[in-house]
Amino acid sequence: MRDESVFDELKEECGVFGILGHPDAAQLTYYGLHALQHRGQESAGIVATDGKEFRYHRSMGLVNEVFNNEILKGLTGDWAIGHVRYSTTGESSLSNAQPLVFHHATVGQLALATNGNLVNAESLKQELESQGAVFHSTSDTEVIAQLIARSTQPSLEEAVAEALNQLIGAYALLILTNDTLLVAQDPHGLRPLSMGMLGDAPVFSSETCAFDVIGADYLREVKPGELLILNREGMRSIRFSEPAKRAVCSFEYIYFARPDSDVDGINVHTARKRLGVRLFEEAPVEADVVTGVPDSSTSAAIGFAEAAGIPFELGLIKNRYVGRTFIQPSQHLREQGVKMKLSAVRKVVEGKRVVMIDDSIVRGTTSRRIVTMLRDAGAKEVHVRISSPPIRYSCFYGIDTSQRKQLIASDHSVDEIRQLIGADSLSFLTEEGLIQAIGRERENETCGHCLACFNGNYPTEVDDSAVMALEGKG
Amino acid sequence: MRDESVFDELKEECGVFGILGHPDAAQLTYYGLHALQHRGQESAGIVATDGKEFRYHRSMGLVNEVFNNEILKGLTGDWAIGHVRYSTTGESSLSNAQPLVFHHATVGQLALATNGNLVNAESLKQELESQGAVFHSTSDTEVIAQLIARSTQPSLEEAVAEALNQLIGAYALLILTNDTLLVAQDPHGLRPLSMGMLGDAPVFSSETCAFDVIGADYLREVKPGELLILNREGMRSIRFSEPAKRAVCSFEYIYFARPDSDVDGINVHTARKRLGVRLFEEAPVEADVVTGVPDSSTSAAIGFAEAAGIPFELGLIKNRYVGRTFIQPSQHLREQGVKMKLSAVRKVVEGKRVVMIDDSIVRGTTSRRIVTMLRDAGAKEVHVRISSPPIRYSCFYGIDTSQRKQLIASDHSVDEIRQLIGADSLSFLTEEGLIQAIGRERENETCGHCLACFNGNYPTEVDDSAVMALEGKG
Amino acid sequence: MRDESVFDELKEECGVFGILGHPDAAQLTYYGLHALQHRGQESAGIVATDGKEFRYHRSMGLVNEVFNNEILKGLTGDWAIGHVRYSTTGESSLSNAQPLVFHHATVGQLALATNGNLVNAESLKQELESQGAVFHSTSDTEVIAQLIARSTQPSLEEAVAEALNQLIGAYALLILTNDTLLVAQDPHGLRPLSMGMLGDAPVFSSETCAFDVIGADYLREVKPGELLILNREGMRSIRFSEPAKRAVCSFEYIYFARPDSDVDGINVHTARKRLGVRLFEEAPVEADVVTGVPDSSTSAAIGFAEAAGIPFELGLIKNRYVGRTFIQPSQHLREQGVKMKLSAVRKVVEGKRVVMIDDSIVRGTTSRRIVTMLRDAGAKEVHVRISSPPIRYSCFYGIDTSQRKQLIASDHSVDEIRQLIGADSLSFLTEEGLIQAIGRERENETCGHCLACFNGNYPTEVDDSAVMALEGKG
Amino acid sequence: MRDESVFDELKEECGVFGILGHPDAAQLTYYGLHALQHRGQESAGIVATDGKEFRYHRSMGLVNEVFNNEILKGLTGDWAIGHVRYSTTGESSLSNAQPLVFHHATVGQLALATNGNLVNAESLKQELESQGAVFHSTSDTEVIAQLIARSTQPSLEEAVAEALNQLIGAYALLILTNDTLLVAQDPHGLRPLSMGMLGDAPVFSSETCAFDVIGADYLREVKPGELLILNREGMRSIRFSEPAKRAVCSFEYIYFARPDSDVDGINVHTARKRLGVRLFEEAPVEADVVTGVPDSSTSAAIGFAEAAGIPFELGLIKNRYVGRTFIQPSQHLREQGVKMKLSAVRKVVEGKRVVMIDDSIVRGTTSRRIVTMLRDAGAKEVHVRISSPPIRYSCFYGIDTSQRKQLIASDHSVDEIRQLIGADSLSFLTEEGLIQAIGRERENETCGHCLACFNGNYPTEVDDSAVMALEGKG
Repeated sequence: MRDESVFDELKEECGVFGILGHPDAAQLTYYGLHALQHRGQESAGIVATDGKEFRYHRSMGLVNEVFNNEILKGLTGDWAIGHVRYSTTGESSLSNAQPLVFHHATVGQLALATNGNLVNAESLKQELESQGAVFHSTSDTEVIAQLIARSTQPSLEEAVAEALNQLIGAYALLILTNDTLLVAQDPHGLRPLSMGMLGDAPVFSSETCAFDVIGADYLREVKPGELLILNREGMRSIRFSEPAKRAVCSFEYIYFARPDSDVDGINVHTARKRLGVRLFEEAPVEADVVTGVPDSSTSAAIGFAEAAGIPFELGLIKNRYVGRTFIQPSQHLREQGVKMKLSAVRKVVEGKRVVMIDDSIVRGTTSRRIVTMLRDAGAKEVHVRISSPPIRYSCFYGIDTSQRKQLIASDHSVDEIRQLIGADSLSFLTEEGLIQAIGRERENETCGHCLACFNGNYPTEVDDSAVMALEGKG
Repeated sequence: MRDESVFDELKEECGVFGILGHPDAAQLTYYGLHALQHRGQESAGIVATDGKEFRYHRSMGLVNEVFNNEILKGLTGDWAIGHVRYSTTGESSLSNAQPLVFHHATVGQLALATNGNLVNAESLKQELESQGAVFHSTSDTEVIAQLIARSTQPSLEEAVAEALNQLIGAYALLILTNDTLLVAQDPHGLRPLSMGMLGDAPVFSSETCAFDVIGADYLREVKPGELLILNREGMRSIRFSEPAKRAVCSFEYIYFARPDSDVDGINVHTARKRLGVRLFEEAPVEADVVTGVPDSSTSAAIGFAEAAGIPFELGLIKNRYVGRTFIQPSQHLREQGVKMKLSAVRKVVEGKRVVMIDDSIVRGTTSRRIVTMLRDAGAKEVHVRISSPPIRYSCFYGIDTSQRKQLIASDHSVDEIRQLIGADSLSFLTEEGLIQAIGRERENETCGHCLACFNGNYPTEVDDSAVMALEGKG
Repeated sequence: MRDESVFDELKEECGVFGILGHPDAAQLTYYGLHALQHRGQESAGIVATDGKEFRYHRSMGLVNEVFNNEILKGLTGDWAIGHVRYSTTGESSLSNAQPLVFHHATVGQLALATNGNLVNAESLKQELESQGAVFHSTSDTEVIAQLIARSTQPSLEEAVAEALNQLIGAYALLILTNDTLLVAQDPHGLRPLSMGMLGDAPVFSSETCAFDVIGADYLREVKPGELLILNREGMRSIRFSEPAKRAVCSFEYIYFARPDSDVDGINVHTARKRLGVRLFEEAPVEADVVTGVPDSSTSAAIGFAEAAGIPFELGLIKNRYVGRTFIQPSQHLREQGVKMKLSAVRKVVEGKRVVMIDDSIVRGTTSRRIVTMLRDAGAKEVHVRISSPPIRYSCFYGIDTSQRKQLIASDHSVDEIRQLIGADSLSFLTEEGLIQAIGRERENETCGHCLACFNGNYPTEVDDSAVMALEGKG
Repeated sequence: MRDESVFDELKEECGVFGILGHPDAAQLTYYGLHALQHRGQESAGIVATDGKEFRYHRSMGLVNEVFNNEILKGLTGDWAIGHVRYSTTGESSLSNAQPLVFHHATVGQLALATNGNLVNAESLKQELESQGAVFHSTSDTEVIAQLIARSTQPSLEEAVAEALNQLIGAYALLILTNDTLLVAQDPHGLRPLSMGMLGDAPVFSSETCAFDVIGADYLREVKPGELLILNREGMRSIRFSEPAKRAVCSFEYIYFARPDSDVDGINVHTARKRLGVRLFEEAPVEADVVTGVPDSSTSAAIGFAEAAGIPFELGLIKNRYVGRTFIQPSQHLREQGVKMKLSAVRKVVEGKRVVMIDDSIVRGTTSRRIVTMLRDAGAKEVHVRISSPPIRYSCFYGIDTSQRKQLIASDHSVDEIRQLIGADSLSFLTEEGLIQAIGRERENETCGHCLACFNGNYPTEVDDSAVMALEGKG
């Protein structure tokens, strides 16, 4: 539960989960989605089928608010897919809740759950509307659904492939009917999607932490441009697109994914710790204590501290009970020193030279606030070390980095930022350091990371409508 | 938010907060209680007065569920006290919510907020009932209220002193009328109660973390056996009892208090880290990684790792979204490996010799579960180190340690416990190690810790009715 | 569900229900309370016992909001009592919810449910507080509980009798312990309380409509000054007081009770119809249609119409969906003609001479509003006929008639009222007409009605504190 | 709030309301929908526009549950339309809530609110799906939206007309864009739709009772086959279809509409009273009292009683507090005589020959239950008179009469029904009596009623898919 009104965090967009051939399919999906809750807290939904009929439930709220025992027991069937979503608020929200369910003229009931963001959603939508399509939501998922519905291909598999080939952007996708599950990833593999096995039951999840929670074993990643077709007889894999060079979103390692997940085979906590080690190597500093901004920067801070031989301390404490209905202190009270979710620990930082590790700087307001908090608690020096390069470009693939003009690093030098946040020193990780620290074991030419938000090299086309759609946002 | 049906954690009972002479008294109390939320999640309440009339609101739930902006704005007045409570569920719960408010024949409206537990509540209650008292709740606080109401002393101050002198047990107490605030601590100072200043406004809190959140400065502890009388003219201090040797609950350091709080002048995170250091010194072990059971054991684990020169890793991850309505996995699913709120990180522990630091062992079921989880994730060895001595005796002062017979250490040796939880080795901290690691700077004859749950040396009388009341519990 | 902010209706205070010796005691109490819902919509509660232990649930809201199947199933036991309450809103409300449950020094658990109002509650309360009593609620019921708790009588029966003899006012009372039910009515029998049988199980209810709903047979009234003692062996009746001349509240017939109830043996619908007949006889008028203000005046309107030979029509329609959360139209919209819960039927009243029957006039604002509404809908003449005498005095026995000065008839003549409400003619029923129309079959010297709100002849003493308490109200 | 699990009532499907050019458009729509609440209790919604942008809110629940002051204030704009819906329960319900909002390729935002039912919805839907349409709901309204979206006509007006010409069935329709309101009724005028004026602001409503509530004046009916086009300049009327002979649903008079509404110029209460008069003329009976099944049969019972010269009494009382969460008595308790929402008044019916007036018999179970209830309360004879002919055929125009085989009159004679319900005598109104009693003043060849549920003469085509869709229902 993030209070985005105050902290300028990055926002992830979604998580998907699916399981086939298990008597407790919906229950296991519930636990899977619960493990993916950090990827989306706005709405949750599960669709289950017994091979004949869909049962489903979707609502606004956290997984454990949306479902209760009674609802879950009603979702009978041995196949299920689920979704958690992060998004904006308002009336239209529930219609954006996934999985999206509709009736297809030839295959009957069909459910879609996606994670990611399309670059050309707006232009596809306009084209479809001009052909008479009626859109009920603002989600990209409905664009995919309409493309599938309109396809004149003879089979669902071909219709889906045709639809996917019209998409530009990032997506990890589950499509369920009463007899088939289709699983796909975009040609660049921007969003993670892993496959596991729970006994004989295939399982799919945006992150592997959901496998651990239900006791499933990791099998492999869904590949860029791959379309898996699973039915009650077995699984086939086809390619709907030539795979491009893989470009896994580097922010999954830096910030989004849970530390216990492996993204594309690399453990996130371990990768973050290496980011911290590398950050020390690139930008060492004399200090008394190292502290991380909880929770996402803890791993990097541990790594930095170990490499530096400086004690790692809990210099910043997060209140675990900041929920959606938390009353933000008024400006007046904030000026008087009323804190919200983070507190600095006086006895830990007082009179000390503090290294504060954070994963990223978006607008800079949070960093300034934390630096001030540490100084107010008596820190003698505050050295900020960021375990990623400066974010200079908007993301079009599902990370809500806001408009470019709001990114402090888009038009300020590192030293300007240092001054603005009030730090004694400030260093960012280099792109090279980032890539090496993530430490892809099977590094090769077809496998890399998306670094577009740092360097503007978008792995896909980015048309004007996408930029305009983004800039048009509040 | 703890799921006590599955994990056998210790439970704290309450937190109190008060502020006098600030135009935003209720709002600041809200933020203060929010910082004390970990001390009680069952109910919350605030009473405010403008010197003429009480305005109050109490309800079941977390602080940010109980209050909204509208309610908070209605709590006008420049004095306020508040309370968070942990307790059992059921119909009677709201009548146990505090502050308790009643009408006193001579002083008018009166509100009480207490943290602690009386040893002789049951016998006092029976005596009062035989005199015709009508009890509406099962809380000790009402016993105190009834004693005050029945006192024939000429002043409130004397009536309260007379009432307190009949109590045996642990309590930190705030009593508010429209013109006076009384603040008291039991003669042994078992529960913490600190005083701070926000500008000219005196502030009281169960923990100092609430001072940091509102920007107040720490002043001093309320002393054992002290009764503070504050009114609009100033503050006086009297003694209602000869102070006994101070016996601060050692579990405040080990487990309950927030890491950023100072209990009796000692920072909790720092003390815990020293517990970890001492634990290593007492029970070293060859290993590859050190991990703590989140969140309470993280500090001790960091200390252990630093002392041992073994890397500290996030080997266990806690799901932050386990709320009250979380659906526990059925026995059937649990046996199939469905986890709840904790996950082991395979890539961190696989093939490794793991030191797992926890703060205490109550019934042993949680420890067994976590050890199993680590082994299932591939840990080669699991060495459990507990940053406190074995709990062998029930607590009568406000910690819900359950009945003695349920405490695994009450009738098992350390090696038996080791076998039961399936660890390769198990060590507890010694009592001496505990005391030295907490590291009371101003250690002297009148200042010590309550260690009764470890050694049975209760600082107060413990009569039979208290034992029976405890043993009679489910 | 009444919207008291707009309509100035009289308000009833409570309903009680009890049943002994039936395996579905709590369920039947639920249906009984549901039938009594019109007597109180603020809170509801049920206490059940199996002879060993109480199970109970009380909460704010309507009966079907307070209870669900799960809660009801938890209220096991073959004895149960229940309560519905009408009252003011606010924090203190739940502590006023009944049945009140407390622990008695010698008899153990004890529950009280009362309907009525004490005249001397305030002075009793002050006396008890000066002796050290702690009050948690503002309800009269707690005064009774405290008196019972303080009694030094050897048996519960004697303690209750002693307590009741200190009360002045109106009350119908159920007191439950694990082995006894005590049932009492005040010496004047102001509030109704009937006894029925469901097979072998004795049943008590404020109104007989609750008997019909559960299929029980009516047996008799509880008598003024009678104390019934029921236990698992049988029932005894004693007198705790010399019975005064019975004085049943006449407003039970005029307005409060459900038309299908028999109050003191007389059916309410039938009595109301006779009120309408008598009203025509006393104040005939030439007209085209007769209409009643729904729902309480329908019966009287039918009687008037039949006696007059004028068609009875639905000239005023009530919206059934006006719930607690209904948004009242702003003054601005009201002035533009936006109605709330009542509408006049144009086609029925247009161009007609309309007789509008209502049961009473309190402040006159409602009557003026309805007369205006009828005229706006085209009524040529509006003749108002009220099926009760003018209310000139406050009630101290449980009817919220407001302060005297707010009663329009306390300082206005009938003709002045007529002018104020804008009617062409206005007549009230005479006191004699009221008594004769209610038509007590067994009329005799010891049986009559309370007419105090019409003529100020209060059947009990009314001390100054009661008047002050009432006048002090908002 | 109807408890359909127990009573076999007819169910209405919807109500629509709209207002143009009033600063309080959304508030007035709230009051209008509130007056139409009896037409649909499942969901409610309002769309408002200021000429530039839509603001809307829709949710499951009653009007006063769905909206609060804050939500209502957010619906700014001087044009608004609203909808109340009755329907089935379940996940899909909210997606069926209206007004349906979508984005049209050329006209931008578009909202639809409809009352009625299409006969050919299923076949239109299949055809649209085969062309790639994606349906999100099961409502007919979405079929209309998709037809409009797909039309290639140059203007919205022509696109709507083209769409309407493909529909077979009953509909009253409001279509809102940011600059236009389109209003239409099906060629047979099966569902009512009236136009009024509030000052200069045109108002549309399913029933005229909504005009009274907001103080608007009735202007005229929307005509069969008429399409009104309103914009900020004025109103035009075109015909999208040749009007057929008008066939107003006769059940609007018999049961659905509020007594204070005028349907097609005839007041409903007055019409119902005439049904009662005619019923007496057709089927007189010697009796002591006449009673109606509340609330819908009260008017007819009054008419019968007046014509017969037999007293009209409240022999059956309805509990006003039967809400959605009411716990139905178990079969076991029902057999023991526990009633639900209706009670018979013993003192009124005991020893009497009772005429019980009801508006219709669907499955017969309710009638049997009420007859039994009256006999149990002591009625000597029970003569049932139904103010409509026997329902023998399913309705395809929006009334949920269930499948034909469940209609008791579809395969039982009147005397068989009489035996099944246990009445001493039973009579239905004749079709001729029904038509004459409704008493259309401007009766002529182009104006009549739909009597299809009585005689099977459907005013439109009824294709097989409609019959199958209906018969396929649970």
